[in-house]
Amino acid sequence: MDDTGTISREPHVLILGGGFGGLWATRALASAPVRVTLVDRTNHHLFQPLLYQVAMAGLSSPDIAAPLRHILRRQRNVTVLMDEATAVDVDARRVTLASGELGYDYLVVATGARHSYFGHDDWAAHAPGLKTLDDAFFIRRHMLEAFEFAERESDPAARAEWLNFVVIGGGPTGVELAGTLAEIARHTLPREFRRSDPRTANVHLVEAGPRVLPSMPESLSEKARVQLCRLGVEVLTGQAVTGIDERGVLLGERRIRARTVLWAAGVAASPLGAQLGAERDRAGRVKVEPDLSLPGHADVFVIGDLASVATDGKPVPGVAPAAKQMGAYVGAAIRDRLAGRTSRPFRYRDYGNLATIGRMAAVVDLRGLRLSGVFAWLFWLVAHVFFLIGFRNRIVVMWEWIWSYFTYQRYARIIIGRERERPK
Amino acid sequence: MDDTGTISREPHVLILGGGFGGLWATRALASAPVRVTLVDRTNHHLFQPLLYQVAMAGLSSPDIAAPLRHILRRQRNVTVLMDEATAVDVDARRVTLASGELGYDYLVVATGARHSYFGHDDWAAHAPGLKTLDDAFFIRRHMLEAFEFAERESDPAARAEWLNFVVIGGGPTGVELAGTLAEIARHTLPREFRRSDPRTANVHLVEAGPRVLPSMPESLSEKARVQLCRLGVEVLTGQAVTGIDERGVLLGERRIRARTVLWAAGVAASPLGAQLGAERDRAGRVKVEPDLSLPGHADVFVIGDLASVATDGKPVPGVAPAAKQMGAYVGAAIRDRLAGRTSRPFRYRDYGNLATIGRMAAVVDLRGLRLSGVFAWLFWLVAHVFFLIGFRNRIVVMWEWIWSYFTYQRYARIIIGRERERPK
Repeated sequence: MDDTGTISREPHVLILGGGFGGLWATRALASAPVRVTLVDRTNHHLFQPLLYQVAMAGLSSPDIAAPLRHILRRQRNVTVLMDEATAVDVDARRVTLASGELGYDYLVVATGARHSYFGHDDWAAHAPGLKTLDDAFFIRRHMLEAFEFAERESDPAARAEWLNFVVIGGGPTGVELAGTLAEIARHTLPREFRRSDPRTANVHLVEAGPRVLPSMPESLSEKARVQLCRLGVEVLTGQAVTGIDERGVLLGERRIRARTVLWAAGVAASPLGAQLGAERDRAGRVKVEPDLSLPGHADVFVIGDLASVATDGKPVPGVAPAAKQMGAYVGAAIRDRLAGRTSRPFRYRDYGNLATIGRMAAVVDLRGLRLSGVFAWLFWLVAHVFFLIGFRNRIVVMWEWIWSYFTYQRYARIIIGRERERPK
Repeated sequence: MDDTGTISREPHVLILGGGFGGLWATRALASAPVRVTLVDRTNHHLFQPLLYQVAMAGLSSPDIAAPLRHILRRQRNVTVLMDEATAVDVDARRVTLASGELGYDYLVVATGARHSYFGHDDWAAHAPGLKTLDDAFFIRRHMLEAFEFAERESDPAARAEWLNFVVIGGGPTGVELAGTLAEIARHTLPREFRRSDPRTANVHLVEAGPRVLPSMPESLSEKARVQLCRLGVEVLTGQAVTGIDERGVLLGERRIRARTVLWAAGVAASPLGAQLGAERDRAGRVKVEPDLSLPGHADVFVIGDLASVATDGKPVPGVAPAAKQMGAYVGAAIRDRLAGRTSRPFRYRDYGNLATIGRMAAVVDLRGLRLSGVFAWLFWLVAHVFFLIGFRNRIVVMWEWIWSYFTYQRYARIIIGRERERPK
């Protein structure tokens, strides 16, 4: 019996998570003789590489997110459910959702990662991270309110604290956040404040390792550092954070007083991974077979940021292109199984690495071809708009970028909601 | 001493509220020899006539909202503060804000209205109202989740409850919400659901009085009712709501089972009005002099939805054009006072009344010229886009409407924030 009460001979593929992995797996099953159920706890697919733009008030949520059921409306073998998987029983082949239980013939677990505070969970309250649209709106409010509170503050020392920003983590997200923050303070806001001067804002980027963008070649890390400094960011490498509270950050003996601290330092795999009964790596990612299946359970696949796998002797990185490739691979693998074919092992194709820093500043590493500055930025821009899902999004995002390029404006500077107030 | 610690000879005009009234008053003082402080508890001016489009996922917040300090960036005599007035002392000429106290030479109170549940505060939890962007996002989530929960519900009776919607109040907001809800259920969503059918959704519009749009001529109310029915809305006039809980609405003996109830039935003036020591009407609005000043306090003005005043023997309605006219009048009145001139009494110019119902359906009453249907809708569309603040907004909103007109799509169908508690 399937969920509509009729007997169905088609195998049921249950996919948990509608990110790049889950969505690409679903699409790869479009013409397969299966029923697919795609479960996500939100109603949308999120184009995560541009999430920092929502946090930094440059884009609005519908520019980078689209309802999963709208994206998949023409794929008739898919049912989309907005629900959350709370337990997985790989022996009984059952998944517990908030709304009930679902059985499966094939299970694809693609629930991704959250940010991690390396055991310092008390830091979470003072240093929000960026993984979901909710996170982005929270950071946007945090950031915009800091400038507002500086404006209404009469004590210069207190005002300076509101205009101090610390971004922790020198990976792509940290670099994007710090560079954009500096641009907002120096170019977007200055003329609009009367008592405080946003140009006096200090943006610190803290990285425990020796250089920013550690996954890039060293020469590009250095280019990125120079571009960040030019934008006005103070880059602090080799500095481990030892404490965070509501007044700032502790780096060993040094204290940076700041009211706004953003966390871009680490991720941990989705807790669902712990229920699969397989070995996991230090970040909680599930170690999978070369065909991305769970050891001992050929009917369960783990993909995306939740999977730990190496191809060509190198670990596959937790990036969007890897998740898409894994999703497409698993869709094909399931089709192979149904047709009695065996699949070749998954192999990650690395097309390159790119990171943006700010206005006309980026670094690109395309297997040997290394770009930085304006050309890298243009490359990044075209690549990201090209990969954005949906026709409307591409046009609107393009328009918004052209507009803000010439005006320095960020149109989404709207502060919404503290906790919602109920009418009395 | 002003706030920067320097002695200033220019009178200080303190304006509370950055809606139509407060913003138009601020602008009217652009070239006056005064210092202006504009205080709003949000950071943005909101184009409230299109707020229902944000609630119904047709527009995104930056389309209808812009930061006050951005709008006013070139008006050098204005300081914008994101803050909230908690107390007003008209004798001491001081206003208490969350961040401290401010004195004034002229005070303009333009803090508007909130929705009111006529003493049934317990209804608020089950029937959200629509006044702020926060409210709009709450209603959007509520509405979109209802369709999602229907899809994951296996019991047909429970599913039907999720697909029942009740809008309470037959004024312009209630009519807009009900019409748009019916359009979403019938045209936007159907192809995207597999287990439930959004077309089976029932939208009820409940009005206690004898007709919808009571401020319109009777013939246009009837036209609006016919257009609503054509869109699939069940219009229930002459029906007073006697109870609301998480499972539906009580109309005397009749119970409508529904999981989503929206409140558009009544407003009450901002509580700040009670602190001004003047007589107020039943809705809490402050009765002001013909020049909109507070009786006995010529240096305090009350405008917009918070003011109760009649011109030409008719009460001035709580609509955006009236608030704008009051704001502009008060700005001019303050300039007159400073120049030793006396002002003529405020006089409201009524340019007409218009309300939209849905796709190609609206009614317009322009002092005798009455339109309904497609022409009224086009008139409404052009008028609203024309009055939208800011160049960017107009282009983007126009594009979005053209796009959704041809595709029936609503691009802002993104559920953000925590899921609502499901009553068991």
